[in-house]
Amino acid sequence: MTASAPTDRVRLRRRHDRGGYDAATIYPILDAMPLCSVGYVFEGQPYVTPTLQWREGDHVFWHGSSASRMLRAVDTAEVCVTVAILDGFVMARSGFHHSINYRSAMMLGTARRVADPGEKEARLKSFVDGSFPGRWDMLRPATERELKATTVMTMPIDEASSKIRMGPPGDEEEDYALPIWAGVVPVRMEVENPVPDPRNMEGLEPPDHILNFRLG
Amino acid sequence: MTASAPTDRVRLRRRHDRGGYDAATIYPILDAMPLCSVGYVFEGQPYVTPTLQWREGDHVFWHGSSASRMLRAVDTAEVCVTVAILDGFVMARSGFHHSINYRSAMMLGTARRVADPGEKEARLKSFVDGSFPGRWDMLRPATERELKATTVMTMPIDEASSKIRMGPPGDEEEDYALPIWAGVVPVRMEVENPVPDPRNMEGLEPPDHILNFRLG
Repeated sequence: MTASAPTDRVRLRRRHDRGGYDAATIYPILDAMPLCSVGYVFEGQPYVTPTLQWREGDHVFWHGSSASRMLRAVDTAEVCVTVAILDGFVMARSGFHHSINYRSAMMLGTARRVADPGEKEARLKSFVDGSFPGRWDMLRPATERELKATTVMTMPIDEASSKIRMGPPGDEEEDYALPIWAGVVPVRMEVENPVPDPRNMEGLEPPDHILNFRLG
Repeated sequence: MTASAPTDRVRLRRRHDRGGYDAATIYPILDAMPLCSVGYVFEGQPYVTPTLQWREGDHVFWHGSSASRMLRAVDTAEVCVTVAILDGFVMARSGFHHSINYRSAMMLGTARRVADPGEKEARLKSFVDGSFPGRWDMLRPATERELKATTVMTMPIDEASSKIRMGPPGDEEEDYALPIWAGVVPVRMEVENPVPDPRNMEGLEPPDHILNFRLG
């Protein structure tokens, strides 16, 4: 993405100190959290569909069943894709200054279907290998039917913003003298031990891409 | 919410086995995760704003600055509020059957502003005390200016659906004979130790509502 000035549609109206519009702040948020929300309009009604996203260069991708109502509705349509990571609860000395620590990114644009079958398979490989390096080539190869049943959508990341809050509460100056415990309760996504499929062949050990998997 | 049949707008088109339309499946998802996404249409463009939600009875609430573009856009407008909890990565023997374990809820409806100042303050107290019991009454009381600067939105939970996936991968029957490690990599939100504000008065200990806080 270019470092040009933000459009009016993504420019933060409030708390400009929390906003960013460049790849250096937006890409790490996308790369840290695959869970995203895709917003679109269908017959005048807004819908938000949670799904997984992945980034390659200056494009964001997501996928789903070719029968999905969401994916059919967003092809060549305007969408809004957001990623939000909750980092903590900010406990202030007044209700008003309670807040959360978070990292979020919002992207606006026109979604398009990845039409070329070769590109589609390459993108899906990047999706799997991006989180689990080397896994794609260990798998039973995709069939033509499976690839047809899968739709991959993409959008350039060129109209986007990030919003980040971190650190302790920001209270009214006179409230710091109050005997009220303030601070942050941090939260984060924890990856737990892998649970083998009970139907795994005997003697199979989890590969390194499972043991080494981290979120964020 | 009533247990009537789902409307066409929220009925799952695919994987009916994963869908639910009753309070018993939807409310626990809302109660487990305050982070939500509010989808709305502004000048024809869909937007998705991450924020926190809370539930009281059969209504969902969210709040923000009265100067917020989102909150002004959604007053008496159609919105879609979703909550999505990522529970794990489902590693199958083919790319096609890779999936995630998750719990998600989607609500459609018309948002309205909580206009009555007394009700607004009571809702904000429920929001804080819902996660941190007893905190509201420990805080410096809200001022009239702060309450005016805060907008609380609400929506009945009467057109909603949940979607849940759990358990091991579901592979093609013949693929279970392949020597490929399959299983689930579980993830969950971890609450870490509270970080006191460096400007806390000396000798303040974190109250029970901080020490006992759990997500989910």
